[in-house]
Amino acid sequence: MEKTRNPVSVAEAVARVIAKAVRTGTESVPLAESYGRILAEPLTATHDVPHFTRSPYDGYAIRSADSAEAFGGNRVTFTVVDHIGAGQVSRVTVGAYEAVRLMTGAALPAGADAVVMFEQTAEAGPLGFTIRKAFASGENLSLQGEDMQAGEQIIPAGSFIQPGTIALLATFGYAQVKVARRPVVGILSIGTELLDVATPLEPGKIRNSNGPMIAAQLARMGIPFKMYETAADQLEESLLTVQQALLETDCLITTGGVSVGDYDYLPEIYSRIGAEVLFNKVAMRPGSVTTVAVSGNKFLFGLSGNPSACFTGFELFVRPALLQMTGADKVYLPYTKAVLAEDFSKANPFTRFIRAVYDGFSVRPAGFNKSNAVSSIARGNSLIVLPGGTRGYSAGTAVDVLLLGVEEGTDEWLL
Amino acid sequence: MEKTRNPVSVAEAVARVIAKAVRTGTESVPLAESYGRILAEPLTATHDVPHFTRSPYDGYAIRSADSAEAFGGNRVTFTVVDHIGAGQVSRVTVGAYEAVRLMTGAALPAGADAVVMFEQTAEAGPLGFTIRKAFASGENLSLQGEDMQAGEQIIPAGSFIQPGTIALLATFGYAQVKVARRPVVGILSIGTELLDVATPLEPGKIRNSNGPMIAAQLARMGIPFKMYETAADQLEESLLTVQQALLETDCLITTGGVSVGDYDYLPEIYSRIGAEVLFNKVAMRPGSVTTVAVSGNKFLFGLSGNPSACFTGFELFVRPALLQMTGADKVYLPYTKAVLAEDFSKANPFTRFIRAVYDGFSVRPAGFNKSNAVSSIARGNSLIVLPGGTRGYSAGTAVDVLLLGVEEGTDEWLL
Repeated sequence: MEKTRNPVSVAEAVARVIAKAVRTGTESVPLAESYGRILAEPLTATHDVPHFTRSPYDGYAIRSADSAEAFGGNRVTFTVVDHIGAGQVSRVTVGAYEAVRLMTGAALPAGADAVVMFEQTAEAGPLGFTIRKAFASGENLSLQGEDMQAGEQIIPAGSFIQPGTIALLATFGYAQVKVARRPVVGILSIGTELLDVATPLEPGKIRNSNGPMIAAQLARMGIPFKMYETAADQLEESLLTVQQALLETDCLITTGGVSVGDYDYLPEIYSRIGAEVLFNKVAMRPGSVTTVAVSGNKFLFGLSGNPSACFTGFELFVRPALLQMTGADKVYLPYTKAVLAEDFSKANPFTRFIRAVYDGFSVRPAGFNKSNAVSSIARGNSLIVLPGGTRGYSAGTAVDVLLLGVEEGTDEWLL
Repeated sequence: MEKTRNPVSVAEAVARVIAKAVRTGTESVPLAESYGRILAEPLTATHDVPHFTRSPYDGYAIRSADSAEAFGGNRVTFTVVDHIGAGQVSRVTVGAYEAVRLMTGAALPAGADAVVMFEQTAEAGPLGFTIRKAFASGENLSLQGEDMQAGEQIIPAGSFIQPGTIALLATFGYAQVKVARRPVVGILSIGTELLDVATPLEPGKIRNSNGPMIAAQLARMGIPFKMYETAADQLEESLLTVQQALLETDCLITTGGVSVGDYDYLPEIYSRIGAEVLFNKVAMRPGSVTTVAVSGNKFLFGLSGNPSACFTGFELFVRPALLQMTGADKVYLPYTKAVLAEDFSKANPFTRFIRAVYDGFSVRPAGFNKSNAVSSIARGNSLIVLPGGTRGYSAGTAVDVLLLGVEEGTDEWLL
């Protein structure tokens, strides 16, 4: 009755998934809707930045040659001939011993080649000031193109669009942004025991928590989804829903039904639809039954029905796959090392992922860690990764930590 | 013309803002829309978890007393009298040497008090199996309430609702969730030099990048906003817009107009509307002109017009203030220590925040770091914090790092 499955390593499983990801294509969205998307083409400077030479300070624009004789007691006097703020352009050409009073960000007037800061001057009548040092040509200026030059490629395609990226896109006039189309993901929770959230409990049944949780994991990535009605452990009925979902979505996440129990029909469903099973056992806890299959160019993620295993399977396999589909350049969970704050004595031959609270320095298991326990899920912001072996781990050991809920990932897989 | 302002430390500035935050109140939202919100009341277990004693394995439910004589060569035979999966409840009461075949998650049938895993049995005819060891009462069971008990407070009010929290809320039947109302934030970019993103460049002018950037910083927090039309440096016009925004929003973020230049009218506007200025100079670079005022119980955040300073001012002051308004328990940016990957030789008397790329181990300035440079904003995922002083910092030094783009913060301010 037990079917033998050969476990693959987590790294091998991730690599198999990444290798099968097919790009979703691109679309154009308004700048205001582009946060969190993936750039589909490089962000190129459409003009120099600054695109005109300007003053980085409040002060006076002068001809530097006129300041050549100024030093110590030998003050040189200038007459103010115009007064501009940022966004204004002076109509005067600065002549000998003339100055234009100007504010930070204002364009350097014609004739001038340096700026004197207010604190470098002394007042001399209502329209004049004196200086006591010489200024070099170009002193106190932001030169045209000193930050970026027209045509320069600033951010590569595949970058995550964060608020700073939006600032750049706005600067260069990208009112529309070419981004990767987001995959639409189907969610199907399978299990005769499952009730919807609004349903009163019944003997032997539990409410479906995996479906709403996965929807939130997708929402956190900004990825749209279609939730299918919870299916009982019925082969024909589930098969029809899977087939329907493959028509309507870019990939399908199922929870439950993927193990070797008498009513676990997903292996049979994969077989019936001719899907290629990339793996059906991973050397990890929780979630060793996690299965990923491909039908046509669409992923079928068969996550465990246990909430912790389901959660972990999503973050380890579904998340990088979806990002890879968008052409993102950083598809993996970011990671760090931290000091284990308490003993973890349970040894396991498989790599163990433990929901944990990371505080920037140390990391502590979030609580009761049986794979069907949901209570600790809501506390963790990370996963401790403990390599499989014959011993537990003691407090003070430096361990690998995968960080959850971080908007941008990394381009290298930890394991 | 120069007005003297007294700088406050960043820590003091943050403390003054936090002290003035007024709670927004609460509302009820559907579970499916609750990701990223702040719990307004504790999440309490509405029933035991598990709410019935169940099998954690695929196997057979038996009466443990019947296994007492089993050992080694003395195998005991059981007859299978029913077969259930998760979600099903057996109608039989298990009698002497009887067993119910059951799958992971299925309720323990009446009469049984232990589960024998498949791998602990040998088949004996079509309806029987044998075992070779004794089982204790309660062996291989998930006992009712072993994970959580009815009435137990699982997650406190003020918690960020992450996907794991959603799983818990679903488990306990919270189809509606009581959360903090999100503040509605007004955004007003001030500056005669500002053009909208879709407008062609003009001499002396630049496109407004701060407004869209702040909108994205709010979007990243899931906070709604109202964007006001960019204002020129005109006192009366800006005053009217500020007054309008205070009627329509919970707080207002302005960019620009806040320094001591000839056309910086925000100080005058604060005075005209009788706002209390909490500070108008902070001992930090960039963004020393950052100003926060309060009118009635509404914040007026006066951020610098320089993109880097604006970005940093938002993350340091606006973000914790908005979270505090929702009653969140972790309002500050998370932080860690990392090794500085390259020299930063520029000394500064003020604390410096440098946009940086953190890879989990070391941290590196994201690039050209003048406060008006936008090019590096789009590369950073963190801010290096360098305390003010007379010396620069050399590669290899451990420095403080504030992490950006992390969904959940920390409850303690770094500085």
